[in-house]
Amino acid sequence: MQMMLLSVLVSVAVLASNVGSTRRILKTHTENRNKESQYKYETAWFNQTLDHFSFTTNQTFPQKYLYNDTWWNKDQPGPIFFYTGNEGIIEAFAENSGFMWDIAPEFNALLIFAEHRYYGESIPFGGKIGKDPAKVGYLTSEQALADYAELINYIKQKNQNAADSPVIAFGGSYGGMLAAWFRTKYPHVCAGAIAASAPVAQFTSPCDAFGRIVTSDYTAAVSNGTCSQNIRKSWSALDRLANLTNNGSATAGIDWINKNMKLCSPFTHPENVTTLKNYLNEMWTNIAMMDYPYPTSFLVPLPANPVNAVCSKLEGTYATDEELITHIFQATSIYFNFTGAAKCLNLEEEDDIGADMWNYQACSEMVMPFCYDGVNDMFEPSKWDIREFAKSCERDWQVVPRPNMANLMYGGRNLDAASNIIFSNGLLDPWSSGGVLKSHGTVVTVVIPEGAHHLDLRGSNPADPDSVITARKTERKYIRKWIAMATKKSLKKKSSWVP
Amino acid sequence: MQMMLLSVLVSVAVLASNVGSTRRILKTHTENRNKESQYKYETAWFNQTLDHFSFTTNQTFPQKYLYNDTWWNKDQPGPIFFYTGNEGIIEAFAENSGFMWDIAPEFNALLIFAEHRYYGESIPFGGKIGKDPAKVGYLTSEQALADYAELINYIKQKNQNAADSPVIAFGGSYGGMLAAWFRTKYPHVCAGAIAASAPVAQFTSPCDAFGRIVTSDYTAAVSNGTCSQNIRKSWSALDRLANLTNNGSATAGIDWINKNMKLCSPFTHPENVTTLKNYLNEMWTNIAMMDYPYPTSFLVPLPANPVNAVCSKLEGTYATDEELITHIFQATSIYFNFTGAAKCLNLEEEDDIGADMWNYQACSEMVMPFCYDGVNDMFEPSKWDIREFAKSCERDWQVVPRPNMANLMYGGRNLDAASNIIFSNGLLDPWSSGGVLKSHGTVVTVVIPEGAHHLDLRGSNPADPDSVITARKTERKYIRKWIAMATKKSLKKKSSWVP
Repeated sequence: MQMMLLSVLVSVAVLASNVGSTRRILKTHTENRNKESQYKYETAWFNQTLDHFSFTTNQTFPQKYLYNDTWWNKDQPGPIFFYTGNEGIIEAFAENSGFMWDIAPEFNALLIFAEHRYYGESIPFGGKIGKDPAKVGYLTSEQALADYAELINYIKQKNQNAADSPVIAFGGSYGGMLAAWFRTKYPHVCAGAIAASAPVAQFTSPCDAFGRIVTSDYTAAVSNGTCSQNIRKSWSALDRLANLTNNGSATAGIDWINKNMKLCSPFTHPENVTTLKNYLNEMWTNIAMMDYPYPTSFLVPLPANPVNAVCSKLEGTYATDEELITHIFQATSIYFNFTGAAKCLNLEEEDDIGADMWNYQACSEMVMPFCYDGVNDMFEPSKWDIREFAKSCERDWQVVPRPNMANLMYGGRNLDAASNIIFSNGLLDPWSSGGVLKSHGTVVTVVIPEGAHHLDLRGSNPADPDSVITARKTERKYIRKWIAMATKKSLKKKSSWVP
Repeated sequence: MQMMLLSVLVSVAVLASNVGSTRRILKTHTENRNKESQYKYETAWFNQTLDHFSFTTNQTFPQKYLYNDTWWNKDQPGPIFFYTGNEGIIEAFAENSGFMWDIAPEFNALLIFAEHRYYGESIPFGGKIGKDPAKVGYLTSEQALADYAELINYIKQKNQNAADSPVIAFGGSYGGMLAAWFRTKYPHVCAGAIAASAPVAQFTSPCDAFGRIVTSDYTAAVSNGTCSQNIRKSWSALDRLANLTNNGSATAGIDWINKNMKLCSPFTHPENVTTLKNYLNEMWTNIAMMDYPYPTSFLVPLPANPVNAVCSKLEGTYATDEELITHIFQATSIYFNFTGAAKCLNLEEEDDIGADMWNYQACSEMVMPFCYDGVNDMFEPSKWDIREFAKSCERDWQVVPRPNMANLMYGGRNLDAASNIIFSNGLLDPWSSGGVLKSHGTVVTVVIPEGAHHLDLRGSNPADPDSVITARKTERKYIRKWIAMATKKSLKKKSSWVP
């Protein structure tokens, strides 16, 4: 089976001179979705309320959800495993959350995968939203969570035998944040949550933590530390090359870059190099997130342990800028051309609706600060400037970001009153910088030292490290416990209801 | 000190023939507000976000809040006692929550009373809302709770010495629902809640429970059971009288009613008697809610133990309709004319903005079913018909009610995951039909057998029954416990924060 990443972090334009454009986005790429999935599901639609929290409109939109009741026993109803869809078409999550499929038979679970509003095919206003603030403005996590509560209510009303079925929420990345928040905000609807690689505290984490973790992945790689050093050196090397003139040719440097980086769209000005640097920043980050122990296919097909693979090209000490960038290109080739089919390096990301919409979320509610210093991390220095960031959001989306909103709404790491959540984090995953790493009561943390971005949510694989096998065992144990608790409560409630 | 009711239930138009118009509203009457309060507070304003859950608008409105820092020690900051304002001008709640004032010195608490959006002077759109759905539609409990979270965030940012101060929420009636929900939805903001007479499960309670409790108050009164029987008989007696013709006079019956009920606006048609029946339904209910052991002044000044007072006029067996209604009038006089200053009975309620806005909330989100059978209760039979109710809401407000919304959002009595809430209920209070009466973990219930509507939130009074004195002791004990827990956590957090 071809595999793909649930949520791929894409970083955009990290430039000291243009800090406002720094916007790191989580996005799901669906172009590689395997049409011949091993997972079988039915597609259904629910007429969803557009605005759950106000009565200024009665509009609704069709929300898509997938389900599989193969292991569901109508006479002795089991739990509902509910994937809280994140920023992308829901099929992608259904097909890449193998863990849910792996354990559904054991629990006789009904599987449901709910598509997040404004992604995939669950677009309000008949799909015609553009960038109109009056239309796109209903895209918030609070609305999405209320969607899920409404959908579950609908399913339970329609299937009375499921009325008392405990609901366990699952999600990875932003979907993991939603799963955790679904439990904290709707504990009467959701008995427990598996929140994989959920950076619920990214809003208030130190802005440099993310880049440091990416860097440490590259420092720890086969290269014995030289890999991250070479990447750190590459930014100024590229700047020098871009501005190189020779024998009266003003474009000697960019000519060299065009040729040796095999750019599909050649540069014409030294400033164009920014595009390449942005691409590389994003690439190093994505590879760190995708550092799985077996080959996967996300944005692009990648080998097993891709950080080691790219770092094997960056082990040396290079005398010249040209030599260094030549090796950077060799590493880059593994990312954009592992199959050998690509003729040139295309720096233009194809923006699917998901990426665009996440960009909006990052500009409105999901404001996550990122910065780099180039010393403790391997990236080009870049400050976090909320004012510049806000300006770019107002320009792009006519939206004024609310940087405190998510933290005030959900509390970040302040989970003292929360219960029945597993926060799992892979230590290879830069998003662990915003994760919950300390257990508290029935809020349990699972650390997967060899894990990249929500590895535990993926289906089991012979190459899985022990730590993810153990993590999944722990998760199953707690899921069983939550179901037992909820079932006991449900029976108790029936016998003791006060009229 | 003159006293007044925090929230007065007003029932409107209970008619078998016009069930759709049945709408029971909680409303705060401010006309009797004592200008010479013993409580001193400052008034402040906060620029509040109109829509917390969407980005379709950037509008804000001025939200009023009151504060008193007399007992607040800036060097050793104590807790914040925060009243989650309900449906009325906030001064009314500040002045009628004597319990908060009574215990503030003991806790060195900062007192804050926040006005609910769309009430008092905290009206969006410059106060010009009318019945425009696009303007009034932002009036929901979810938005109000987010207002309180934002306000506390603002106050804590502005006053760094209060940053770690635990917030204890207080509220009575709908304000008590908000206090409880504030704790369940924003536990990272609110360390605990005193929810007095909070009918959080009224949305799903059997519709006849409320009327039965009112009835039992009247059955248990001095009259030895005859009081509620006489009230039950009065509805048909009024119908017969209204339709009485005599000696060729088609209006003999209503003439008799006009005269003997001393109506300010005389009836001209037999159907007018509906207005009188609605008034009486509301009156009996209000008196039951206000059945305090000392004289109070709400809608109208009332004697101590007003149920006994009115029932002392309804102890007999009356041979004729005229005799019965004459006694009903004597009882009514205690309600509308205890001071003896009224010249006639005015059936027209003056609708202040609060009542109107609660009416909207009852029509949109706070859909509470009420019904009467005239057998197990003393009221005129009236079915609960959600379709008729919805029609009337669409007619009056152009709003489609969402009868499942509040229950889905907050979970009613399903509080398994909740913590640090006291639900107090007086057993004389009909709203206890929607209350939480069973403790679970740190969700503690306090029952006040001799208590009417949120008696415990009022200031101490020599006539207080032992049960309310005990209730307040319990509440103080838990408040102290919650503060200690939150303070410990706050210190712990400081030393163990994960970067």
